[in-house]
Amino acid sequence: MISNNSIELIIELAIKKASIIVLDGFSKKKIVRNKKSHQDIVTGSDTISQDVIKTVISNSLGKLGVAKEEICFISEEDTNLDKPRKYTFIIDPIDGTTNFAAGIRYFAISVAYAEFSKVKIGIVYDPVNQTMYKGILGKGSWVKYRNESQRKLSLKSAKSSKDWVVGCHYNGADVFHKQFARYEKLYPKVRGLRTLGCLILEICELAAGSIDLVLNGGTYIWDLAAAKLILEEAGGKVYNPSGKDLVLNFSDPRISYQLFACAKNNKTRAFSMLK
Amino acid sequence: MISNNSIELIIELAIKKASIIVLDGFSKKKIVRNKKSHQDIVTGSDTISQDVIKTVISNSLGKLGVAKEEICFISEEDTNLDKPRKYTFIIDPIDGTTNFAAGIRYFAISVAYAEFSKVKIGIVYDPVNQTMYKGILGKGSWVKYRNESQRKLSLKSAKSSKDWVVGCHYNGADVFHKQFARYEKLYPKVRGLRTLGCLILEICELAAGSIDLVLNGGTYIWDLAAAKLILEEAGGKVYNPSGKDLVLNFSDPRISYQLFACAKNNKTRAFSMLK
Repeated sequence: MISNNSIELIIELAIKKASIIVLDGFSKKKIVRNKKSHQDIVTGSDTISQDVIKTVISNSLGKLGVAKEEICFISEEDTNLDKPRKYTFIIDPIDGTTNFAAGIRYFAISVAYAEFSKVKIGIVYDPVNQTMYKGILGKGSWVKYRNESQRKLSLKSAKSSKDWVVGCHYNGADVFHKQFARYEKLYPKVRGLRTLGCLILEICELAAGSIDLVLNGGTYIWDLAAAKLILEEAGGKVYNPSGKDLVLNFSDPRISYQLFACAKNNKTRAFSMLK
Repeated sequence: MISNNSIELIIELAIKKASIIVLDGFSKKKIVRNKKSHQDIVTGSDTISQDVIKTVISNSLGKLGVAKEEICFISEEDTNLDKPRKYTFIIDPIDGTTNFAAGIRYFAISVAYAEFSKVKIGIVYDPVNQTMYKGILGKGSWVKYRNESQRKLSLKSAKSSKDWVVGCHYNGADVFHKQFARYEKLYPKVRGLRTLGCLILEICELAAGSIDLVLNGGTYIWDLAAAKLILEEAGGKVYNPSGKDLVLNFSDPRISYQLFACAKNNKTRAFSMLK
């Protein structure tokens, strides 16, 4: 059995190696391919970042004696899971692809480790700004900005909702009219709305206390696995629209989730504001 | 007569000194005061950053033999201008105050120098990420990210508007319904909308080619003086809603401007999309 400490180090190594490739791609003209629409894109850097992460993890675990059959990966490119394995890694090689492709310096690499379907480690890394968020199940979560020392995260929001900053997303043709209506209703009640374009970093900023509420209408397990653990270990929670705890379904990675996320002690207020 | 080179160095010095104070304030609990509404705030850091900038500029010019009567400042706190002087400085000590107060690492200090009402130098600095944008009338504009070398900015957008990223702002009770309606109409036509919360940096990102169109419904001379020059020197332009070049009125700094800004060769497309 490989220790969680070792797995944490392996994930960090994989992310740091992927960062080199991602930053290299960021400084060059991006090769962009449309997926379902002109708003849904993938770049060459997404693919190669993902390959690097998977290779580093597989090779490292292999060297430690883990059999291939015990490892599996879940990502946008790997949704045909038979069932989660002892060493399950959920990868988003670049969240915020539109920002990345445009040159906006706000995107992240996300890797989570789950023992079967129990997420135990989540690491999110913003390579441009060298910010790392980390969550370890039962131990806590931390942020480290560039040269600053690591800081433990702890959400004890007592802010009035008039002072909230809300992270908003638009999720394409099916839902955007509803989202505009919702945000328009919310706007006068809070301090500000932000659309920063990287859900994973926004959930991490929520864990760090910079954002008070995050709303999204179409997100996947690879967007959530790491950031959700980081948030939960800081005292926050991800909810589905009916206010129940959002549970990630490992047996079908193609499920799209609607969510709101906030500090646990803000849940009641957030839920009533969204009604 | 002081050379423009010297004034540029004095502005940089003032901004660097103000940054120390601003970053110090950023790491602490912010003292926030509401102005007109819960969405319109000022922090202790705004005030002190502004004092530092004014003091450094006044003292430096004084040492070079400039008489007090030749210097004036325009800022949110200094709107009672008799008329612009030979050494006119337009200051925004923190643009993105809501981000600053929340802990979102995206805000900027902006200082422009105008000879009477002719803006000749604009410098915008993002202290957290150590990004500096600079525009010099007739010479060009540049960006410098942290340890990277300085890059000259030049906008030659030939992107389809379907690939545009649009910076959107909400400007309070009077206009937000109209803004939501406009952005909702725009959303399906472009790659993405962003609300990053710092107009000045968004205009600079437009100059750097990361954002393609910026929309704002209530901005002031201190938000625009430096960033507008940076954009213009890169090949972009700021327009009023009727498509005319936006001209800053120095004789009344209390004027609120509506605008759209883009690369010059995108103007026609932008204007027709906004109709």
